Amino acid sequence: MIVGAAELRAFAATALRAAGASGPDADLTAEVLVAADLSGVDSHGVARLRRYVEGLREGAIDGLASPEVVRDHGAVAVVDAHNGLGQPALCFAMDLAVERASAQGIAAVAVRRSNHIGIAGWYTERAARAGMFAIATTNATPQVAPSGAGEPMFGTDPISYAVPSTDGPLCFDAATSIVPRGKLERLRREGRPMRPGWAVGPDGESATDLPAVVAGLKARAGFALLPLGGLGEEYGGHKGSGLALLAELLCGPLAGARWSKHTYDESGAGLGQFVLCLDLGALGEPDVVAGEVHRLTAEVRSARPAKPDVPVRMPGDRRRRSARQRAADGIPLLPPVVTDLAKIAALTGISPLQAKGGDG
Amino acid sequence: MIVGAAELRAFAATALRAAGASGPDADLTAEVLVAADLSGVDSHGVARLRRYVEGLREGAIDGLASPEVVRDHGAVAVVDAHNGLGQPALCFAMDLAVERASAQGIAAVAVRRSNHIGIAGWYTERAARAGMFAIATTNATPQVAPSGAGEPMFGTDPISYAVPSTDGPLCFDAATSIVPRGKLERLRREGRPMRPGWAVGPDGESATDLPAVVAGLKARAGFALLPLGGLGEEYGGHKGSGLALLAELLCGPLAGARWSKHTYDESGAGLGQFVLCLDLGALGEPDVVAGEVHRLTAEVRSARPAKPDVPVRMPGDRRRRSARQRAADGIPLLPPVVTDLAKIAALTGISPLQAKGGDG
Repeated sequence: MIVGAAELRAFAATALRAAGASGPDADLTAEVLVAADLSGVDSHGVARLRRYVEGLREGAIDGLASPEVVRDHGAVAVVDAHNGLGQPALCFAMDLAVERASAQGIAAVAVRRSNHIGIAGWYTERAARAGMFAIATTNATPQVAPSGAGEPMFGTDPISYAVPSTDGPLCFDAATSIVPRGKLERLRREGRPMRPGWAVGPDGESATDLPAVVAGLKARAGFALLPLGGLGEEYGGHKGSGLALLAELLCGPLAGARWSKHTYDESGAGLGQFVLCLDLGALGEPDVVAGEVHRLTAEVRSARPAKPDVPVRMPGDRRRRSARQRAADGIPLLPPVVTDLAKIAALTGISPLQAKGGDG
Repeated sequence: MIVGAAELRAFAATALRAAGASGPDADLTAEVLVAADLSGVDSHGVARLRRYVEGLREGAIDGLASPEVVRDHGAVAVVDAHNGLGQPALCFAMDLAVERASAQGIAAVAVRRSNHIGIAGWYTERAARAGMFAIATTNATPQVAPSGAGEPMFGTDPISYAVPSTDGPLCFDAATSIVPRGKLERLRREGRPMRPGWAVGPDGESATDLPAVVAGLKARAGFALLPLGGLGEEYGGHKGSGLALLAELLCGPLAGARWSKHTYDESGAGLGQFVLCLDLGALGEPDVVAGEVHRLTAEVRSARPAKPDVPVRMPGDRRRRSARQRAADGIPLLPPVVTDLAKIAALTGISPLQAKGGDG
């Protein structure tokens, strides 16, 4: 099924409102989710909506919560999301960081008692449009084995950064694991194999039995995704593990949030996030700095490609191309997502989503 | 040859002074270099001394330069190292960041017109001892291919972070490439093979002819190290590439420093560095936050190991163990380093280094 972005956004917002979210929070959350679908990051788009709607309906997420600054040190603040939706909480935090960094040159805001935030790059790109170099990271339920371990202790914790450039923000956004669980689920659906070295099994060796890995990750039974660099240290698994640990530290202990196996209990997800903004104007003339960012990225792009027919890509290229194409042609939804959205409509009593062109 | 740390430090400082560095700068630079040797990071220790001494003698490095704050925005500052030694410049920048973050909660300092800084972890660990979560990164001469490229555009740019923990600072420090060039040189000396996927050759494929790779990297001819995640995107090479790009952005365009192929010309290295400090006290009670850091790391350590007989390591474990052992037993220097140090003594007219126990 192919749907229009505006229709998908309206459907998601209506569903979230019907499930108990406030109007502005529903709109913002729908916007961030559909931004992921537009960008081709389907795992973080409306594929997540059912969990949000169920969480709101069951009270696991508080749809009427407002994020609150509970510690204010000027350029450093801590926000309590009060177990509301993650998107409005992190957007509040990032906007606060932009405001404080505009005044002080740099600012960091940590968020505690939060929920899933969608794509981290949405927030950093927003800050970059306001003239900031920005970083955002979040923790998540454990799925990734630290280097040397045979069980999950880290989330797939993404790290995103964005920086103004002459031709618009440059935005990097990637999980600190080699692949996200969503990629394994997609490969299994498509009947394609997984690669050795993406996950570790109960025997401490690389696991490649895809259905067993997907089931084991879900059941938290003896399988774990591997951090960037893979199993052992020959390819830098200890480095990827240290980067995942960085996200865990910033979003857990430093934010005063829950972490690792202590996330997601009866009181809520308790996730933590961390954002940082650095005003380009504190370092130099903003246009000059953005121009130099553009010169660097243009020069990297012009490097001799490894394969003559495959141009060197920069962070965000693929997402931007997908967004242009899907804004024009519509967003293709996979069958399980279509089923989910129909269930959401039935559950909340809202009108079902129509295919693009209205004939669906 | 095995030497005592104090003797090695004194030799290095004397050599740097004889080559034209000011007394305090020579002492600090010797301290950072020998800290690497103690930690087992031999590639960043006195193995570099000859290049420093020659650079000072030839005027490529200005031994009497003083770092100067050329842009001051309170919590954000830019330092011009005036082409002095990198160690005193970055130590000045980190101490400034600690001071500013103590007042404002968070601070960033960028350095331009700088030189090689040794191990980045020395500076972050210093800041962590002052109660800071700290980050340090530097650019370097290009040796690493961006994802999709067949030629070097990025340095092996390390990213280091450190954070106070109940049992002392936790410190991560790693190049953003899978392996540093120094590792390849060591393997070649030892007659051991390199692994596929560490480097890319002129044909855009994984290169494993170790002598050819080492020579090609040195001559900047058709070979490049690969970023964390390796060749292509199957194992996240685009992620490692994006992290190297982060270091390049912070240390180049944002610092107003040279970057990529524009480093190291007749006016000096022109390297850039970037440090950031976040005062734990701005986020909560420092002891409580450090205690939570310790709880997290202890829990990760206690994860079920992948191999029953190999305990899960945390960043810094190996360096700390090496430092304890080498402080007691002395620092083993490889034959080419011993030759280098003898040449330095002859060049500068200082007393040659003696082996530990004085019988060397």
